[in-house]
Amino acid sequence: MQFLKEADKVKSVFRRNRILHGERHENDAEHSWQLALMAIVLSEHASPEVDVLHVVKMLLIHDLVEIDAGDTFAFDQAAVLSQREREEKAAERVFGLLPTDMAEEMRAVWEEFERQETPEARFAGAMDHLGGGVVPNCHHQGGCWREAGVTVERVKARNSAIAAGAPVLWKYAEGLIEEVQQEGFIRSSNAAIVSQESVD
Amino acid sequence: MQFLKEADKVKSVFRRNRILHGERHENDAEHSWQLALMAIVLSEHASPEVDVLHVVKMLLIHDLVEIDAGDTFAFDQAAVLSQREREEKAAERVFGLLPTDMAEEMRAVWEEFERQETPEARFAGAMDHLGGGVVPNCHHQGGCWREAGVTVERVKARNSAIAAGAPVLWKYAEGLIEEVQQEGFIRSSNAAIVSQESVD
Repeated sequence: MQFLKEADKVKSVFRRNRILHGERHENDAEHSWQLALMAIVLSEHASPEVDVLHVVKMLLIHDLVEIDAGDTFAFDQAAVLSQREREEKAAERVFGLLPTDMAEEMRAVWEEFERQETPEARFAGAMDHLGGGVVPNCHHQGGCWREAGVTVERVKARNSAIAAGAPVLWKYAEGLIEEVQQEGFIRSSNAAIVSQESVD
Repeated sequence: MQFLKEADKVKSVFRRNRILHGERHENDAEHSWQLALMAIVLSEHASPEVDVLHVVKMLLIHDLVEIDAGDTFAFDQAAVLSQREREEKAAERVFGLLPTDMAEEMRAVWEEFERQETPEARFAGAMDHLGGGVVPNCHHQGGCWREAGVTVERVKARNSAIAAGAPVLWKYAEGLIEEVQQEGFIRSSNAAIVSQESVD
């Protein structure tokens, strides 16, 4: 119960991206709900051996460390450098509120998600990139990618991790990213260079 | 995907109760996340035959009908009368956005939750009462029970449904309700009569 009450705090950790039907930023609790629902609805696109309950567990807890460590924008290189250390410390404290056996289990589930090595972790990771990045940002004309001036190459490099968990969904995501690029909301780094050269 | 985008709207359906660490009202998406996490953490208190993934599915989708039907306050008798009809219509439309086989599955999962007849539905129902009612309202000194002047008898009658899904958790919930009563934030209907008589 102490753990569950503490977990309630992720309702006040806000992310870079916005909800689809509105302009406000999304919080970690509703983000985690969305990914868990997405994993169930899209589970036919996971490898057949994937244990869906395990994926859902991962997704429900994957951002609890942000209660202490805060949301780290994936394209903020300085923040990403210190992310692992901040989040490990947070995992120690937050999962430590659970009874010992469950604390160890949840901590291991979180570590598994972070390492992205098992089929479950990869499918959960694909949900995170798709539901927490590609879908909302493409819906909002580039969203926080546009706001931060991230190039299409960096967007694709980061989100191509979707392919490791669900190849079909990466095709879908790539299509959405390319549409946003064609509409001019995010730019190619090559295009930037070419356009600079043509100015020169 | 059309279904998942539509489901995003529950992030804008606000409930009577408030988040634990703040004063703002909770939305249905973060509420559903919380119950799903709670079901996993407290699953040892469910009957041994309970399928936890099935419970989690129920909890993740149980409030999607509120996209159209809105949140119905359990102690608003007039609203409760029309609730079933409004929610059935909503279920038809919202789950109808899924491919046929999944639409039927999700609709059946929602119906199962509503009927409260299976061990999974009862455990999910217990989570809903505990996480969506007892814990936040007791944390906020009676919360929306106090605001609406609901008596302790009605609070107990409604939430005793927790006992059907998880007897140990009902003992815990009853204790919390009684504390709030002892602190004078919610009143007994008998106490009201007695106090009126003593005035007379």
